[in-house]
Amino acid sequence: MKLKIKKLKFTTGRPVCIIHEKTAKEMGWAVGGRILITTKKKKLISIVDTSNKIINKNQIIVSEIIYKKLNLKSNQKVEITPAEKPRSIELIKKKLKGKKLTEKEIKEIINNIANNSLTEIEVAFFVSAIHDEGMDMDETKALTQAMVNSGKQLRLSGKVADKHCIGGVAGNRTTPIVISICAAAGLIIPKTSSRAITSAAGTADTMETIARVDFSIKEIKNIIKKTNACLVLGGALGLAPVDDQIIKIERVVNLDSTAQLLASILSKKISVGSKYILIDIPYGKSAKVTKQEARELKRKFIALSKKFNLKLDVLLTDGSEPIGNGVGPALEMQDIIRVLGNVNPPKDLKEKSILLSGNLLELTGKTKKGNGIKLAKEILDSGKAFKKFNQIIKAQKGDLKLLEKIKPKYTHDIIAKNKIKIKHIDNKLINQLARMAGSPENKAAGIYFHKKKNQIVKKNESILTIHSTSKEKLEQAKKFFIKHKKDIVLS
Amino acid sequence: MKLKIKKLKFTTGRPVCIIHEKTAKEMGWAVGGRILITTKKKKLISIVDTSNKIINKNQIIVSEIIYKKLNLKSNQKVEITPAEKPRSIELIKKKLKGKKLTEKEIKEIINNIANNSLTEIEVAFFVSAIHDEGMDMDETKALTQAMVNSGKQLRLSGKVADKHCIGGVAGNRTTPIVISICAAAGLIIPKTSSRAITSAAGTADTMETIARVDFSIKEIKNIIKKTNACLVLGGALGLAPVDDQIIKIERVVNLDSTAQLLASILSKKISVGSKYILIDIPYGKSAKVTKQEARELKRKFIALSKKFNLKLDVLLTDGSEPIGNGVGPALEMQDIIRVLGNVNPPKDLKEKSILLSGNLLELTGKTKKGNGIKLAKEILDSGKAFKKFNQIIKAQKGDLKLLEKIKPKYTHDIIAKNKIKIKHIDNKLINQLARMAGSPENKAAGIYFHKKKNQIVKKNESILTIHSTSKEKLEQAKKFFIKHKKDIVLS
Repeated sequence: MKLKIKKLKFTTGRPVCIIHEKTAKEMGWAVGGRILITTKKKKLISIVDTSNKIINKNQIIVSEIIYKKLNLKSNQKVEITPAEKPRSIELIKKKLKGKKLTEKEIKEIINNIANNSLTEIEVAFFVSAIHDEGMDMDETKALTQAMVNSGKQLRLSGKVADKHCIGGVAGNRTTPIVISICAAAGLIIPKTSSRAITSAAGTADTMETIARVDFSIKEIKNIIKKTNACLVLGGALGLAPVDDQIIKIERVVNLDSTAQLLASILSKKISVGSKYILIDIPYGKSAKVTKQEARELKRKFIALSKKFNLKLDVLLTDGSEPIGNGVGPALEMQDIIRVLGNVNPPKDLKEKSILLSGNLLELTGKTKKGNGIKLAKEILDSGKAFKKFNQIIKAQKGDLKLLEKIKPKYTHDIIAKNKIKIKHIDNKLINQLARMAGSPENKAAGIYFHKKKNQIVKKNESILTIHSTSKEKLEQAKKFFIKHKKDIVLS
Repeated sequence: MKLKIKKLKFTTGRPVCIIHEKTAKEMGWAVGGRILITTKKKKLISIVDTSNKIINKNQIIVSEIIYKKLNLKSNQKVEITPAEKPRSIELIKKKLKGKKLTEKEIKEIINNIANNSLTEIEVAFFVSAIHDEGMDMDETKALTQAMVNSGKQLRLSGKVADKHCIGGVAGNRTTPIVISICAAAGLIIPKTSSRAITSAAGTADTMETIARVDFSIKEIKNIIKKTNACLVLGGALGLAPVDDQIIKIERVVNLDSTAQLLASILSKKISVGSKYILIDIPYGKSAKVTKQEARELKRKFIALSKKFNLKLDVLLTDGSEPIGNGVGPALEMQDIIRVLGNVNPPKDLKEKSILLSGNLLELTGKTKKGNGIKLAKEILDSGKAFKKFNQIIKAQKGDLKLLEKIKPKYTHDIIAKNKIKIKHIDNKLINQLARMAGSPENKAAGIYFHKKKNQIVKKNESILTIHSTSKEKLEQAKKFFIKHKKDIVLS
């Protein structure tokens, strides 16, 4: 039957429509069931809610995502038909029973997720089915390829390279430095990043302190043309978008799936056309993975990359402590500029950035084996990397001076009551502390370390400073620190 | 913060509220996230949707389920706070990792489902975690007990007995007959049934052709006081209600969990206070389970019943063919009345009803071992069972004469083109065919078998008749029959 769109901004977490309860009853559409909304050009599956007000019997209100995806207009007539259950549901059940899926079957599931034919409940069953070691390498390959095919792709010429870190280490913002060094050496690096999910800042949050990060594919191509690289937000570009839909459900229970992790990372890289990829896996105490898990993950990354003819290398790095002095968007950007500008740079951040850059320069053949670190150091020390960074910032409509304007309204020093030697600082708790203080939403919020592992803090000296833009949040963070102080900083 | 209820009938598949997008932004509540709605007496967790119209910044629209559960009024002020993620989510993750849950942990998950603290996505993860053999007997016991505790309970005196069939056999409507025989013998049988889910009719659908089935707990007690038994709808009584919430999610992918199946059935029986329980497990070709699976399930039913000190027996019955002549609410009620009134009764339905009744009479000690079938037959043949049935129907505000008024508008005979001997009739396809014809929503719709297994159908004789109340549905059913005819009736 045909219903008329009633325009109304109605934002929900999934495609939902509201129809009149009488219409639903007459047509036999159950609340919570799915219907297919069809325009002349497109179609999309929606969940049915009903009401007896706001709409009349010939109208339909659709949630914002449907309005946008179907390109609807007020009073436009759309065709509504009952949507059959897609075959994917049977395939998901097959996987839940522990059976192997074929390439075609995985493609069908991913396509159904991409075009919103599956509800979140069904995606949750899929996520359950593939969690832990739920998929073998053939299936992981098919999953990766299906994710790539679900979205847009960037086609670039030259030696297209990329780096990726699996995360978990507070303050570990090497990306802008590595990208600047390697782009200065002539590599093409279409770097897309995400915002923070559970950490204090993502590369996109950090870059946003001084530049724009949200660009169209066309604009990104222009930025890369000018500078060899970009440092942009991946989210809205439509690169392997189905990955984001799956991750959203995974996060509900923080369920890890190796297949999903591998496919997620590599599908984004393949979508931007990267051929040379360096993966950083920090391991150790308070990191995401143990050394054993890191090794296993490395093996799988390399196995999967071979199936796509990628030149991929993995570095296992020490992820037991935070890196740099700052944690939080503005504080991390300060560290980055100190490394690039060589003004009192945090040693660990500088060294790790050089290590990663050196390896990527070798992997791409920009220099011979064993010479990467030397070359990276030269590019950094000569100021070429900083110049490249400035070029990128300019191309992304930014300005380094913007950073000076981001100030915390409130700060609080954590003081040592006695002389101590720091034995360990916990990544997870530091990230939580920074988030309590308002990071990453408040760019100025975060943590600044005055001292780190193996350093002596004298009596009445400050160990770290909490930065915040809200008195309440600062108080919350202080309380959190007091509650967990023994675990946050071990001495 | 406090928001004012804007009354509006808004029916959704889960607890959802709509708040103004500005309010959501100011308070930092994400779309799709969860908030806690608190009144003076109750609280409930809801998912957040937003809009920029329909409501002002101080208002909130809640879905019908919230409105009812919190007993809200128009313009009432409610307190809204961000809802923390319940610990259950970690417990669900633990189970997904294959670890055993303690009694206390299972109780916590079930309580969280019962009070709507878990979203459907989270329940889906729980269902995945316990699917197949995901729970051992200790966990299954805890699950059963937690389900019982989640709802209301019926307390009755006397020998309280019950029967249950796991389903899957078309036309297999023994329940009203067995209950009539056993109640006539003096057993107390608080029989609650469900409507059809995937089959052509449930006991509740069938009973509804001649009586009311929706009663309150208090009314049910009265019916039982008058007649020893009832034949009512279990759904809205609040007996182990969390079971229904879980089943709703299971059905999305038709995932079977042995623990959930056992807990579902026994929690309902325990909730109505049954001490003597007979379980019917039909097995075989086109049944739900194979003989091997039936045996395994029997073992588990008995093991679990011992943990609750129940006297439980399990009959494995031949479930390979439909039972009775009719499939669909009115057609099955016709068969029941033919058996009870001894007017040309379908032999298989009569024999199975006597078998089940005899076993339940022996299990409860109403007669000695080996004498049950004889006693059941006597009660049926003497007309005592029919009298009891009429009593129950009367107590449930019904009348046998109502059945005469339920007529199909359209019928279609399936004619044998040549003389055939029927080798097999498929339960699943017959159920589908009856549903195509409009069963169980249209009480008159369904299938009537003129001939069954091992019978000869002469050329131009009718094998079966499709009954429908809609021309379109009859056409649909005819098409379905033609497409699947070789599999529906094997000859």
